[in-house]
Amino acid sequence: MVIDHPRHPFEDDTFGTGGFADHSTPLIRNCWYVAALSNEVSREIISRRFLGTDVALYRTLAGEPVAVRNRCPHRSFPLAKGKLDGDTLVCGYHGMQFNTSGRCVNLPSMANVPGNAQVRTFEVVERAPLIWIWMGDPDSADPATIPDTHWLSSPEWKSVNGQFSFKSDYISMHENLLDQTHFPFLHPGAIGTPEYARSKLKVRQEGNVVIIDRVLKNSPPPGVYAIPTGLTGIPVDRYSEARFQSPAMHVAFARIVDTSQGAGRDITYRFNISHIFTPETNGSIHYWWFCTRDFDLQNTATDEHLYVSSAKAYTEDVDALEWILDVVRKDSEPQFDLNFAPDRPGLMMRRILHDLAVAEAGVAPDCMQQCQK
Amino acid sequence: MVIDHPRHPFEDDTFGTGGFADHSTPLIRNCWYVAALSNEVSREIISRRFLGTDVALYRTLAGEPVAVRNRCPHRSFPLAKGKLDGDTLVCGYHGMQFNTSGRCVNLPSMANVPGNAQVRTFEVVERAPLIWIWMGDPDSADPATIPDTHWLSSPEWKSVNGQFSFKSDYISMHENLLDQTHFPFLHPGAIGTPEYARSKLKVRQEGNVVIIDRVLKNSPPPGVYAIPTGLTGIPVDRYSEARFQSPAMHVAFARIVDTSQGAGRDITYRFNISHIFTPETNGSIHYWWFCTRDFDLQNTATDEHLYVSSAKAYTEDVDALEWILDVVRKDSEPQFDLNFAPDRPGLMMRRILHDLAVAEAGVAPDCMQQCQK
Amino acid sequence: MVIDHPRHPFEDDTFGTGGFADHSTPLIRNCWYVAALSNEVSREIISRRFLGTDVALYRTLAGEPVAVRNRCPHRSFPLAKGKLDGDTLVCGYHGMQFNTSGRCVNLPSMANVPGNAQVRTFEVVERAPLIWIWMGDPDSADPATIPDTHWLSSPEWKSVNGQFSFKSDYISMHENLLDQTHFPFLHPGAIGTPEYARSKLKVRQEGNVVIIDRVLKNSPPPGVYAIPTGLTGIPVDRYSEARFQSPAMHVAFARIVDTSQGAGRDITYRFNISHIFTPETNGSIHYWWFCTRDFDLQNTATDEHLYVSSAKAYTEDVDALEWILDVVRKDSEPQFDLNFAPDRPGLMMRRILHDLAVAEAGVAPDCMQQCQK
Repeated sequence: MVIDHPRHPFEDDTFGTGGFADHSTPLIRNCWYVAALSNEVSREIISRRFLGTDVALYRTLAGEPVAVRNRCPHRSFPLAKGKLDGDTLVCGYHGMQFNTSGRCVNLPSMANVPGNAQVRTFEVVERAPLIWIWMGDPDSADPATIPDTHWLSSPEWKSVNGQFSFKSDYISMHENLLDQTHFPFLHPGAIGTPEYARSKLKVRQEGNVVIIDRVLKNSPPPGVYAIPTGLTGIPVDRYSEARFQSPAMHVAFARIVDTSQGAGRDITYRFNISHIFTPETNGSIHYWWFCTRDFDLQNTATDEHLYVSSAKAYTEDVDALEWILDVVRKDSEPQFDLNFAPDRPGLMMRRILHDLAVAEAGVAPDCMQQCQK
Repeated sequence: MVIDHPRHPFEDDTFGTGGFADHSTPLIRNCWYVAALSNEVSREIISRRFLGTDVALYRTLAGEPVAVRNRCPHRSFPLAKGKLDGDTLVCGYHGMQFNTSGRCVNLPSMANVPGNAQVRTFEVVERAPLIWIWMGDPDSADPATIPDTHWLSSPEWKSVNGQFSFKSDYISMHENLLDQTHFPFLHPGAIGTPEYARSKLKVRQEGNVVIIDRVLKNSPPPGVYAIPTGLTGIPVDRYSEARFQSPAMHVAFARIVDTSQGAGRDITYRFNISHIFTPETNGSIHYWWFCTRDFDLQNTATDEHLYVSSAKAYTEDVDALEWILDVVRKDSEPQFDLNFAPDRPGLMMRRILHDLAVAEAGVAPDCMQQCQK
Repeated sequence: MVIDHPRHPFEDDTFGTGGFADHSTPLIRNCWYVAALSNEVSREIISRRFLGTDVALYRTLAGEPVAVRNRCPHRSFPLAKGKLDGDTLVCGYHGMQFNTSGRCVNLPSMANVPGNAQVRTFEVVERAPLIWIWMGDPDSADPATIPDTHWLSSPEWKSVNGQFSFKSDYISMHENLLDQTHFPFLHPGAIGTPEYARSKLKVRQEGNVVIIDRVLKNSPPPGVYAIPTGLTGIPVDRYSEARFQSPAMHVAFARIVDTSQGAGRDITYRFNISHIFTPETNGSIHYWWFCTRDFDLQNTATDEHLYVSSAKAYTEDVDALEWILDVVRKDSEPQFDLNFAPDRPGLMMRRILHDLAVAEAGVAPDCMQQCQK
């Protein structure tokens, strides 16, 4: 693979070090993020921090999810510590009542409701098993831009899933997922094979999506795929597409093709791996993962195998990413990271996030760098 | 009730957002604060932080309380970790000895005592069960300005009391006490009744004291007062005066009048509620409360009832105030709180504290705002 | 003793408050510090922070210690979480391999090793039981400047030792060791006697070394020396030399001379006390101590006595120094410490460290002060 990008993008880039987003870049707000799994939001109000803003989440009597700033506009009491009276959210301090649009509908100590009494709400869209939230400019919220995850709810697919809240940044998380050459080292054994790490890949950018295609023919699959398919040690053809879909999501589509059955009788096994994360702050993220397959849906042993293998690998990622951010933050000396050919997809992603941040800040790129300092 | 103050004092006030003190306003130093209860200070040296300054407290052999900066002027050893030799405080590091005025009277490694060897002391005045301290300009310390608390030591009264150290600010604490419309929501059941929350009140300012008067006639008292007086469910007349007395103290005087005995035979039950707090820093306070009554002094069941009811309610206040400061501090977006009619006394208090802070800083108001940023 | 230095060096010194180093002065980098005891470094990679920089430490197959920045130059993974393959350090993230000079010798995902792939290494020199490290300008590293500690490995001497990692600064640690007038107060009983605290001393500076000489004749030794020598209550002559040897080391040479045997038959007992510390940051240090004697080498009861006595005293020092830094950092008011005659050696040391910091910063002294603010 020949890569024509410079080895030190930070040093010869016209944007300077600011040309690629890092953990200190302002978080992208105009994006659909996952707020919670459907089963996390109920008639018990919960709170969770997204992009530095605390949000209270609950469901109406009819089951609709509602997201509201977790801070009463009167005296800053956390609304999640209040209670629900039907669909009305009642502040636990002075009893201010808000409807699902955030408008105050009753202030017990006043005869009339003040016209300006309002708490900010956030648009939420439920695409089970996910509830998406829009933290950006309300006028820009368009549900059509929510990433496709139909396989998570389709009866033709079966998922196992898990979640983490940990101290890292979404930039490093995306980089980790876009450079699979770490598989044999960070995840020895189960999910990576040496052949796969060295297999050729094609990278392309479509709008703000980065897509990596890989084909590896005639090679035994790693354990995580071999055991569910019964193809341990048997050479197969592997096709994978990994996508930086948005700041909120990375998704990988893997196909394992068993060609051993003879001409025209290939069997294809499909795995969709969804990585979904929402920054809590610049240094902490909520992370949900799903491993979804299209075969052997009733096999609970396969469920268990995929859950255990995935959870082990993602715990290794989470540990590594926490170590890295800790190193970066505690170090008293700056470091300009070296970049190599396999970093190209990650750098494309970091340039996209940088440009989005610049656009959201509404400032010139060089001013952006000032802001980050 | 008609209130003529603007709903958004922060936005159209000539002082800008600085016109009303908040948790970031410099703490008022020229004020008597409570350092400790009398029984907390003994021949065992203790230390406690007031207005950001650590203070060591002990008693002389004659029983006089002494307050001294908890930092040796030589090498910053905390003097509370030293020991007492008679009335002399001996530093635990190099043995410097200080008398009760803070003057060094012996430095073991030197033949003569250096003339400039002195540790700062703070004027303290004991008004049992309280020990008051003056952290401000020594020349301005006038014991005549210590708030009256004679009911705490008079044989005609009986008190129960408790204390907290918690992460909030005294501004929010005063606001909480000056706006009792929170009673039915934060303290459901015991101490608030809906009638009381809606009862009329008169607010006035006398110098730097804010006074709220309330009268509620012919209404059953809440549990906290009904049980000790035996007036559960019986309509009574209630009179209350709540006072922002100083940055260090809020006091409420409540009278429950049983008019059921017939003309001219009214029985009056009096409760004085003292809330006393000393900022440790801008985000943490020491808080002592006393619930004092003038009847049935020997009844330990009444003691127990009042202690349990009070402690429950004040724990609810403490929790709420910690949640609020946490929300305010962690939020990445500013919020200009809405204000309603019941906030008027609190806003009067916040303007007083703002003006006192400006005066202490010796700067113009707009400069003050700069300092707070 | 007459000392001609001013009592308030901070106020009338031409260097201003910056004339003497304190806990906020930039750490001296051009100095040999101890990285670890020899037995702490093995084929298991460990990491430790020195002067704000995290360092990974391991031994080659041949047993040579190696120190490398604990941060991969590619994506900042902590190299101590990787593994050793022979003498090669393998990053645990993408498998980058580094030789003992820090040069990348293999990058599994690339056919060729990029020319600029290199991790910084630090020169280390083993003088058992110590491993010294040079964190400063590589061109200035000269093993000839490593302090002499031959008594720690000589068969003519026997040591007991211990270590702490604690929250203080090396300035306060050196001050503590240079002013022994604290012995009777911080370490009552065992290691100090009143006569010793008041005994005359001579201070001199040789280059950047501060040397204190003391002689105390005809006085019983303190317990720590009396018990091993069997001279409890017997007047002896004591000679001691205490040296601020470098930012990394203070060493004391004590001789106890038993003159009771008659003319010409004096018996001399020698103790060398080595205090070695390496700043982790401006507010935390690694500290190793050794108590070494030249007599009764096989006596394990003496080992035990010296270990227990020393560990007790140094724990008292460590506690005191942590309290002091905590006081200094939390205090909202500045304090200009008073200085007395016994502080002179400490002030000489603080001036040396200040001047070294100024020289390393390559700036004028007044600019240095700006940097510290």
